Amino acid sequence: MAEARSIPLAASELPTSWYNLQADMPHRPPPPLHPGTQQPLQADDLARIFPMNLIEQEMSTERWIGIPEPVLDKLLLCRPTPLRRALDFERALDCPVKIFYKDESVSPPGSHKFNTAVAQAYYNHAFGIKRLATETGAGQWGCSLAAACNFFGLELKVYMVRTSFEQKPFRKLMMQTWGAKCVSSPSQDTQAGRDINARLPGTPGSLGIAISEAVEDALTHEHTRYALGSVLNHVLLHQTVIGLEAQKQLASVGLYPDVVIGCAGGGSNFAGISFPYVRDRIHGKTVRILAAEPAACPTLTRGPYRYDFGDLSGLTPLLAMHTLGHQFMPPSLHAGGLRYHGMAPLVSQLKRDNLIEAEAIPQLECYAAGILWARTEGFIPAPETTHALAAAIREAKRAKAEGRERTILLCYSGHGLFDLAGYDAYLSGQLTNHELPQDEIAAAIAKCPPAPAL
Amino acid sequence: MAEARSIPLAASELPTSWYNLQADMPHRPPPPLHPGTQQPLQADDLARIFPMNLIEQEMSTERWIGIPEPVLDKLLLCRPTPLRRALDFERALDCPVKIFYKDESVSPPGSHKFNTAVAQAYYNHAFGIKRLATETGAGQWGCSLAAACNFFGLELKVYMVRTSFEQKPFRKLMMQTWGAKCVSSPSQDTQAGRDINARLPGTPGSLGIAISEAVEDALTHEHTRYALGSVLNHVLLHQTVIGLEAQKQLASVGLYPDVVIGCAGGGSNFAGISFPYVRDRIHGKTVRILAAEPAACPTLTRGPYRYDFGDLSGLTPLLAMHTLGHQFMPPSLHAGGLRYHGMAPLVSQLKRDNLIEAEAIPQLECYAAGILWARTEGFIPAPETTHALAAAIREAKRAKAEGRERTILLCYSGHGLFDLAGYDAYLSGQLTNHELPQDEIAAAIAKCPPAPAL
Repeated sequence: MAEARSIPLAASELPTSWYNLQADMPHRPPPPLHPGTQQPLQADDLARIFPMNLIEQEMSTERWIGIPEPVLDKLLLCRPTPLRRALDFERALDCPVKIFYKDESVSPPGSHKFNTAVAQAYYNHAFGIKRLATETGAGQWGCSLAAACNFFGLELKVYMVRTSFEQKPFRKLMMQTWGAKCVSSPSQDTQAGRDINARLPGTPGSLGIAISEAVEDALTHEHTRYALGSVLNHVLLHQTVIGLEAQKQLASVGLYPDVVIGCAGGGSNFAGISFPYVRDRIHGKTVRILAAEPAACPTLTRGPYRYDFGDLSGLTPLLAMHTLGHQFMPPSLHAGGLRYHGMAPLVSQLKRDNLIEAEAIPQLECYAAGILWARTEGFIPAPETTHALAAAIREAKRAKAEGRERTILLCYSGHGLFDLAGYDAYLSGQLTNHELPQDEIAAAIAKCPPAPAL
Repeated sequence: MAEARSIPLAASELPTSWYNLQADMPHRPPPPLHPGTQQPLQADDLARIFPMNLIEQEMSTERWIGIPEPVLDKLLLCRPTPLRRALDFERALDCPVKIFYKDESVSPPGSHKFNTAVAQAYYNHAFGIKRLATETGAGQWGCSLAAACNFFGLELKVYMVRTSFEQKPFRKLMMQTWGAKCVSSPSQDTQAGRDINARLPGTPGSLGIAISEAVEDALTHEHTRYALGSVLNHVLLHQTVIGLEAQKQLASVGLYPDVVIGCAGGGSNFAGISFPYVRDRIHGKTVRILAAEPAACPTLTRGPYRYDFGDLSGLTPLLAMHTLGHQFMPPSLHAGGLRYHGMAPLVSQLKRDNLIEAEAIPQLECYAAGILWARTEGFIPAPETTHALAAAIREAKRAKAEGRERTILLCYSGHGLFDLAGYDAYLSGQLTNHELPQDEIAAAIAKCPPAPAL
């Protein structure tokens, strides 16, 4: 008899609270610092950027934070998401492993970003905000926030890094279908954008520039706030529904994972799948937790732990994190969602406390894993997601070498339907791995701001 | 409490047989005719084009046909598909209706075409065929067969209508990711393609030309057969898993639909959702069944019922069907999958027997329905699928006018992630409705071949 692959979860089992790891972690991250005074940031310092209800959530140490009804209602459009066993991928690997994947690609915009987008749009709406501004790189975050703002009647302006804007026109059209406005960054709509356009005509843009534009937009428009799709505590919090659901689904078939894997850029999908398991580990359970990052942007594996800015221009508070330096310019990489110089403070702290491991994987190995997945499981993964798949293959091979069975759980963070040009480049041999010299990292770190030691 | 939207179905409830409507319909369609002799077609006449196991299935009148284990195994990658209640769409319509949609967009290639692609690839493989050739218009069928051939180790060559090939480069890349070869049609790879290219340099191509190329390819290559994604009996048969699952899902919440709706191009997704309900209707159940077709290609509503070729060039057998004439050239329409001059003989016969209704809907009304759906339910529908959504809105308004509650079931045949250029054209006011003059249809019908009257 053909074997079932999907482990469903009834709608009534959708988690009704987010899990806040800050309640359980042995050491909380050092506080973010005001960039001017270098003193711990106060809630009021952020009030022009974020609504107060989200700022309170950012600072909360409550273990469980209830998910508001209107957020649950919209999450139910696609949640609980399927947990699936990757039977054909397993067969192809021929290793003693069971591989389960939590499929976050089934959301309307196609990735896990939808989970926090819905929550952020709701909280801004509840606080009386009428309009949001944000940046987007590859476009997953911009699309997710566009869908969510549309639900709650918020206007949205998205500043999309110019090179992505031109390479991925469908992302802009998707945002527009949901009623959002998306412009190429640097734009002519902000002072920051106009300055850069005058200084560097034809620049491909960067996430740092786009953040500057979005923050300026929020500061200069009435009833407007800024929204961020990763890194911050409240964003990671909203993603914990992923791991909470996966725990119930695996338990329903009597399983517990030996290894939990997520790809890591800013840290949000990794946190989503893993934080509920980190809690278990803190409480004595045996489980390994592995962040897979690109070898070309190896924040957790090669970046020092220190205070640094969250953006290229140095506008944000100083965050305690693993960083390659806020002026580090990662090489062009098809997994655009993983091209971030820093790592969420919560994830960075876990790495310091040896509660998680990290592995850096070269681009070609990731694409090979993505192709194997597409040709066995059928679905085409986002380039970001292929990092988790490649890490799972490494785990499977280790299991075989050791002759020990293993159950692997991974977060399938998004689909790759708008990333097929990357697969084309890979299949036609145009992609290479990027070796990152140590002195390049050292040079970028040297440009970090002076800040208290950690 | 937030209301559940998804009605799951356990993997163990996946149908293990397809339902063959020919066993129950009051009148079977007249037989296909050999284009030369005009005599009823024999199995052997098709043996160079299709494998004998599929030819037997095409001609079978058995009520239930078992689904082979290897096909079930691959269908389980995404089946059973979710049945969801469109709560927010209902709220926006404010009419006394419950609307449920069977979500076929969750398959790896993004549409219902996957259901028959897996079956056809399997049967060809089982018959010893090593290679398939097919045509594709918008690309949904080519992608589905690419995924399926990859599973069973078959080579695949896809002839994609040139205008789509150039407008939708991602479709080609998707096929390539699964290992298939996709060329622009007319190509230089067949005599038919070379002739057309010489005669009409720069032609945008057509489905008719692409079919000629694919058939010639199958006839001139060893171990190769041709595959078709709609119209034929066996293709419609493979789609009945859609309706069989939906029946179980609705029954699990104690509901039975008043109306079942599917969009109709060649007829395959319409057949998939509706044939199990047509059976109920034949056996006395009260249920209306509605095919939604484009006003610009109104086969069922305005095409006469007669023998006609299935392709533009007149290579195929003569089929008894509603047709606009095989030389009818539908206007350029973003719902490329519905631009077909004919209609499946089984569906045409049901229309003749008043077992189904049909409604033709203009393009702008369909896009408006698609936008409303995207902004309420979140998911962006394929342009083909918007015809079913527009028909559901009409039903909802009739229900309100009559003051009678109604439960509507529709087939959500595919997602529109590769069709965002159409939404962009709609939102920027570039699309228009196409009025189809009666004399245009009459002129095309006049070019139909002489054939026995029906």
